[in-house]
Amino acid sequence: MENGMMNMKTPTNVTIKGILGALMASIDEEKKKRVISLGMGDPTAYSCFTTNTVVQNSVVHTLETQKFNGYSPTVGLLQTRKAISEYLSINLPYKLTEDDVYITAGCTQAIEVAISILARPNANILVPKPGFPIYELCAAFRNVEIRHYDLVPDKGWEVDLEAVDALTDENTVAIVIINPGNPCGNVYSYQHLKKIAETAKKHKILIVADEVYGHLAFGENPFVPMGVFGSMVPVLTLGSLSKRWLVPGWRLGWLVTTDPNGIFKNTKTVERIKKYFDICGGPATFIQAAVPRILEDTKEVFFTKTLCTLKQTSDICVKKIKEIPCLTCPQHPQGAMAMMVKLNVSLLKDISDDIDFCFKLAKEESVILLPGLTVGLKNWVRITFAAEPSSLEEAFDRIKTFYKRHCRQQKSQSNPI
Amino acid sequence: MENGMMNMKTPTNVTIKGILGALMASIDEEKKKRVISLGMGDPTAYSCFTTNTVVQNSVVHTLETQKFNGYSPTVGLLQTRKAISEYLSINLPYKLTEDDVYITAGCTQAIEVAISILARPNANILVPKPGFPIYELCAAFRNVEIRHYDLVPDKGWEVDLEAVDALTDENTVAIVIINPGNPCGNVYSYQHLKKIAETAKKHKILIVADEVYGHLAFGENPFVPMGVFGSMVPVLTLGSLSKRWLVPGWRLGWLVTTDPNGIFKNTKTVERIKKYFDICGGPATFIQAAVPRILEDTKEVFFTKTLCTLKQTSDICVKKIKEIPCLTCPQHPQGAMAMMVKLNVSLLKDISDDIDFCFKLAKEESVILLPGLTVGLKNWVRITFAAEPSSLEEAFDRIKTFYKRHCRQQKSQSNPI
Repeated sequence: MENGMMNMKTPTNVTIKGILGALMASIDEEKKKRVISLGMGDPTAYSCFTTNTVVQNSVVHTLETQKFNGYSPTVGLLQTRKAISEYLSINLPYKLTEDDVYITAGCTQAIEVAISILARPNANILVPKPGFPIYELCAAFRNVEIRHYDLVPDKGWEVDLEAVDALTDENTVAIVIINPGNPCGNVYSYQHLKKIAETAKKHKILIVADEVYGHLAFGENPFVPMGVFGSMVPVLTLGSLSKRWLVPGWRLGWLVTTDPNGIFKNTKTVERIKKYFDICGGPATFIQAAVPRILEDTKEVFFTKTLCTLKQTSDICVKKIKEIPCLTCPQHPQGAMAMMVKLNVSLLKDISDDIDFCFKLAKEESVILLPGLTVGLKNWVRITFAAEPSSLEEAFDRIKTFYKRHCRQQKSQSNPI
Repeated sequence: MENGMMNMKTPTNVTIKGILGALMASIDEEKKKRVISLGMGDPTAYSCFTTNTVVQNSVVHTLETQKFNGYSPTVGLLQTRKAISEYLSINLPYKLTEDDVYITAGCTQAIEVAISILARPNANILVPKPGFPIYELCAAFRNVEIRHYDLVPDKGWEVDLEAVDALTDENTVAIVIINPGNPCGNVYSYQHLKKIAETAKKHKILIVADEVYGHLAFGENPFVPMGVFGSMVPVLTLGSLSKRWLVPGWRLGWLVTTDPNGIFKNTKTVERIKKYFDICGGPATFIQAAVPRILEDTKEVFFTKTLCTLKQTSDICVKKIKEIPCLTCPQHPQGAMAMMVKLNVSLLKDISDDIDFCFKLAKEESVILLPGLTVGLKNWVRITFAAEPSSLEEAFDRIKTFYKRHCRQQKSQSNPI
């Protein structure tokens, strides 16, 4: 056999896209039911989540100038870095500069860069459970150990800080915080974020703040960026245009050193980040060049409309879930685009777990939900509410029908459904 | 100190962009000379290397349909993979399928993926000297050992196959071949490529064929893709729209398994590649969506014009170099966009080496050349000829002036310059 292809360990992690592909493949096309996918966080499939013409025209313009067909600096165009530093500074007690900002091919690449620059022998990183599987897959490819801390459903999916204390050791390099939360739809309060920062400071670890859903908060707590506590503990902030501007396919993200005390600089982390960007293929130069105008010219009403729609669609989910006995929602979503819903399989006669539930649901009802196991919680499901209201209503009606077909017969029922 | 930032080894490799940045910074602005950079392989700075309107309009169109603002599959859009498989199959004795093609953020990401999926403990990869530094930087981040084989200037920069034999051991996983060549401007013959394939087969290593300059051949040898020998040895072919379509900033590249015997599939390399793409941020979906039309509709005359211009500009370089005694060109370029030129420092009174030469030239004449050391050859320089003819003429006139100012006084000169 070929030398080059022996002894290669490939991580065996399940990925969201992998399982969604398998679910799609299991749909019974003979049923001729319209497929409703509430499995993925891509809202662009629905017309109520279309980006603004200002946003689109900005890119058409930079493309048509023909000035941005060449390479950008590997860390990103200067004007783009500057615009993003100003955009993020609005919500911080200090000012970022262009030197703090690195442009990435979506938040996915920002995650990849963050994990890769932190990788060193025996290092471990703390990630939330439930969480976002790309962190684990990326860590597996970089030989970084992942340790899971729990999010507590009954406390608004807050971080179990005692678990963090117990998990951290001298090889822990960072804790990942996803806020607004995917997959839980939580938005952390200022006070809870402060406690997280204090915990990280105590353990001398840095924070990777995944804020790809930044500003998508429609509940009680406003969005507070983790960088607010950058003076207490150095923060790597990850973000992108994807969610707030509804253009996930544009692959325009950022990694930001939110670190007013310059700890990243002193520890040569900045040098390492810069070097790493030399091996990264970033986003298209003309898309980068459009960012200053996109950030400047997008009207507040566009953001408000998205938040109203997300509030409305998440309310539909909460309401409809109450009609389906095997599903419960411990926490009304406050942000982002997805929520975690608990599945009680004991009420179902022929469903063994969340995977079985999702595959049978796909086959029988052409509705796709994400099995909770994919994001770390067995017998939960993740439901994306960034969908057309009518599609959500119909999806839940089908889930209800599915439930009725599979629920255990109860001989003497005091509370019939 | 922060746990997260201790003990991180950052590779110390010199990068092309790093040294070019330093050269730009050393330009003496008081001289008020227009800067002429022949240091980088980005032709878009010059109006004679502008992409076609068909190419640009294809992207404007896919953007304006609003159908491609969402995520693509991580391996790329199906129609894009299919179009590239058909495009590459034209020059192969067998047909590729869409499953062979993975879409990357430029060829840079294709290199990163290739190196990363080959990484395993103690692995080594053979790369050419002179070569392209990203391979080494990427290998350093992935803990892969790099071994250099020589390219032989007097034999048209062919691979020193005896050196390859001597360097290969049981931990060698692949050999990287860059053809058409960067930084040498070579284009290998069918016969030489066949010998390379035979050597790789003998050692049971795979070939990484960097064909980012594919089809940019204007000399004696036509461009032959390494995949022609895919039946003999499995080939990972890397390419992009960047050079042939003159849009390096669009970051649209590909990694292709050119492997009709399915060895990659049998050795689970395909599985590993697919998994790896889950952590990659690829190119924008709407740019991917434009690729089928770009490949279909670009007229031959556009390619011919680029080749004529490159032939003309490389001829200018060869001619002008003959007028400068300290520079010699062992090989007339036959392809790509750059050439290696030998520097005889013994003819110069106050220049110690190629680095010194390039920095003084930048300071005194505002002309940027790339020191050969950056690509592995001390006392050579890399000159990019993808530039406006008038800029090239002027650049060489300035280099000649520079030479005269720095050449050793020869008391009795039989052949005065």
